[in-house]
Parts: sequence; structure tokens; C-alpha cells
Amino acid sequence: MTEWYEVNRQTRAVDPSDRGFQYGDGLFETIAIRDGKPRQWQYHVERLNAGCERLGLELPGPSLELDLGVALARSNHDKSFCIAKIIVTSGSSVRGYGRMLPTPGEVYIGVFSATPLNKPAYLNGVATMLCETRLATGSPVAGMKTLNRIEQVLASSECLPTGAFEGFTLDVEDRLICGTISNVFIVKDKIVRTPSLDRCGVEGTMRRLVVRLLGQEGHNVEICDLMEEDLATADEVFITNSQMGAVPVHRCGNYKWSIGEQTREVMRLLANNGIDECRE
Amino acid sequence: MTEWYEVNRQTRAVDPSDRGFQYGDGLFETIAIRDGKPRQWQYHVERLNAGCERLGLELPGPSLELDLGVALARSNHDKSFCIAKIIVTSGSSVRGYGRMLPTPGEVYIGVFSATPLNKPAYLNGVATMLCETRLATGSPVAGMKTLNRIEQVLASSECLPTGAFEGFTLDVEDRLICGTISNVFIVKDKIVRTPSLDRCGVEGTMRRLVVRLLGQEGHNVEICDLMEEDLATADEVFITNSQMGAVPVHRCGNYKWSIGEQTREVMRLLANNGIDECRE
Repeated sequence: MTEWYEVNRQTRAVDPSDRGFQYGDGLFETIAIRDGKPRQWQYHVERLNAGCERLGLELPGPSLELDLGVALARSNHDKSFCIAKIIVTSGSSVRGYGRMLPTPGEVYIGVFSATPLNKPAYLNGVATMLCETRLATGSPVAGMKTLNRIEQVLASSECLPTGAFEGFTLDVEDRLICGTISNVFIVKDKIVRTPSLDRCGVEGTMRRLVVRLLGQEGHNVEICDLMEEDLATADEVFITNSQMGAVPVHRCGNYKWSIGEQTREVMRLLANNGIDECRE
Repeated sequence: MTEWYEVNRQTRAVDPSDRGFQYGDGLFETIAIRDGKPRQWQYHVERLNAGCERLGLELPGPSLELDLGVALARSNHDKSFCIAKIIVTSGSSVRGYGRMLPTPGEVYIGVFSATPLNKPAYLNGVATMLCETRLATGSPVAGMKTLNRIEQVLASSECLPTGAFEGFTLDVEDRLICGTISNVFIVKDKIVRTPSLDRCGVEGTMRRLVVRLLGQEGHNVEICDLMEEDLATADEVFITNSQMGAVPVHRCGNYKWSIGEQTREVMRLLANNGIDECRE
């Protein structure tokens, strides 16, 4: 059961004229709520603000954090471990794609129950697959978490019948970009790399944290173009996402990896920085 | 004022968990209603069916045409000249991109009042601009009218403050693709060309009719890659859309054209095939 709130009221209804529904004209953040508090709040807010800037949206009200607090207070879910989803759209308007910029944003907040990923996944890794769905390249909203997610829907729907935990997607120019709900990291000869997201894909908050923490340890992550070939030759592969932290990957289709020291190190760093799921 | 209907009931409410709202996971058709009837109905249905096939959606109920009829009967708008918008989404679901295919579709029908484009636009042409917003290339849903329309929102929002009637968009590889609400045709040395929409863009129903009618006259339209340079060297340019038919374009930014014989011929053909707006 999901509970949905608009600012100042619970809602079960979106106006059909809302441009989020009509055009996917908006953004969202999916936030881990732990011990009643939004984890990585600053990263989520910064990405949301960057997205609003790009789309010409203005966040309403004095404080998104206050709105989230109200939604959580009203929620019946277990606030020690649940998920909040904040959606910002460009609101309702007359028909037509164009709008005057900046446009006042409309905020919706959903609260969901959540189940932690099981411990064996962190110990033994998860199985992934390479999706046939390709991502378009050169998106004007690359890196942002917009409401235009048909590519991820198609890719993720490929995974469901196979039982794969996650699907990796390439862009149409054969570059590895990300998973449907995660970012991908590849380790080769102790060097950690993750795909550039300048042309498509979503810049995850956990990816950002991993890049920062490894950098602080003197192990800069290389953000670069990666190809399927880099999966084939990888020593280790892991994925990140705001809910799960970092999770080792033991296979993607026919490519198989063991779970190595770099991945364990990343998990230790995350565990020491508030990502409890990665604790041994 | 827009009236929105779900199948069998009027609605002012979309479930916030509807995947159309969450992910833009759906399709739409914007249909010209003339004399109480949906114009180009077969083309709209065929495009919608192709989109549903690609997205793994199943249209519910015995007949979309029946649903539209009910919505129109209930509407207070002038049914001699108005617009119907049919939205099909993958419905509400638990959180997560993936869904089992095929997925039962959820249908929403909106009815809007409409004002015909003024006569001088058809006589003297309209002014367009070249948008800075570029379209991503290699979309898995190229040609389809999905609910993922952020690119068109950004491009059209560029046009609003300028007063341009329409904005032309290039893809990231500098190919001319389409207008935000129209398809583009370029005439050079009596040959009519329109951009290929294999990588991005929307295949309009009026574009399809123009291609068919010109073909019947022995003037096959070349569907090919076109660049900004082709605008610079064009003899004539016109745009098409389901509501307006074909409309001459007299400029795009600094490129200017006169309204020539090929454009007039297309308008005559359309007028003779039920597109009354193009009648002289």
C-alpha cells in the first residue's frame, strides 16, 4: 500500500491535466528513510535542484524537508526503514508542450514500505543480464531523474521473466551506461571505473558517494566511456543505488566475476559512512 | 476547460500510482473531431496499436471507438470542431519500472475545445525557429507518440517567448527531425523530402496522409536524412499536423522561403481528401 501526499494534504488523485501525466514533464527522487530520517538528503536535494534548473521548474514553499517531514509524520509505514518518493511536476496547464519559464513546480510525496535486500546478495553478489533495450544518446536531460522513463521500463520488463536481479543497458553506440535502477562500477587491475553519464543515464546519489569516498582514500574513480568489452575483461563488478548501497555482481549473462577486494573496500567505506546495508 | 473521461466514467483524478504519471509509461493520440467524428481515425488507431505492441500494452474493452463516442456524447464542447485526446497507460502498479508483458492498458479520454488556425497562416505561411534543444538519437520508441515528451516541452518552451509559431528540432547529430507539434517537409527542385524518423521524432498521421496522397499522384516523397543545410537551400517548406493539415512556412530563423506550387498542391490534395482547413 502506497500513501501519497500533496503538500499540505493526503491525495489519491492527480489532475489528469498535470503535465507530469501528460508529458512526463517533471522529476523525482527516491529516498531511503532510515530511523525516521532521509538518508543522503543533501545529494537528493542537489540533484533535484539541478533538474529543476534544467527544466525551468521552481520548487514551491519554504522547505521540501518540511513537506517530507509532514508526509512521514502522517504515514503509517515503519519509519525506521521505508522509502519516500518526491515527484515534482510542472503542474496543470492548458494543452500544449510549451510553458513559460520558470514554472511553479507541483510537489507530490509518496511513502512506501520497504524490505532490505537479503544478506546473501551482499555476500555472494547478484546475477544481472544485458538488456536488449538500448538507451538513446544525446539526451538534453542526461544524468537527471526525470519522469521520462520508458527506456528503463522496457529494459526492466526484460529482466522480470528471467529472474535477473538487475539489467544493464548499453546506449545505441554500444557504450555501457547503467542498470535500470542502479549505477555500474567496473574494477580492472585495481582501477575502479564507472560510465560517463553525459549522454544518457541517471547520476545516482550512491554513485556520487562512492566516487567521493574512494577519492578521499586516494583512489580516484575514472568516469569514462565503457563498452561491453569492459564487462568481459573486468575483475570485479558492483552496482550502487540509494536504497541498497553497493552490491557485488557475480554475473551478467555469460560474463562472470568473483567478488574481490575493491568491492569489499567500497562496501566497508559505505558502511562507515552511514550506509548500514553494506555492514558485514 | 478540459473534460476528462475514463472508460465508463468522467474523471478528474488519475491515481498517483498510475505508471503514466510515474514513468510516462504510455502513449497518446490527439485527434481532430470534425462534424462529430474522429478524423483520420484509422491512422490514429494504427499508430496507437503499433505503440501498444512496442510497449507491451493491451487495449482493454471491445472498442476504443465506442469509448470515444461515449466521451464525445457526454462532452459539452462543440462537436463540430474540437479535439479528443486518448491516453493509454500501463495502469497502476507496485513500485518499480518492470512489468509483466503484455500489460492491460488504462484508457483516459479528454475532450478539448479548439480554434481553427487563421486563414492568413494558410495563405502567407507561418514563422518558425530552430530550437537549441536537441533530440536524443536512437530511441527505442522512435516514431511513437509516447508520454515521454520532455524534449518537446523544452523545445516548445523556447518558442513561447519569441512568438514563433513552431520550433524545428535537430537531433544531436545535426539532422533535422521535426517540429515540436508538426512534421517538416522540404521542397527542393520540385522534389518533396521529409526527415526519416527511425532514430527519434514522431510519425504524424498527417505526414502519413501527405506521403500517401503525393505517392498516388506519382510524386513519391523521399524519406531521408536531412540537415540544417537542407533548410538553407530549400525552395519551399511546409509543416503538417493532425489538427491543421498542411501549413506553409515562410521562415525559420534567418532562412526564408516563398510559398510555392508544391506546397499549394499538397494543400489542394488534402482539401480534396477531407482536410477542410486546407481548402482555399
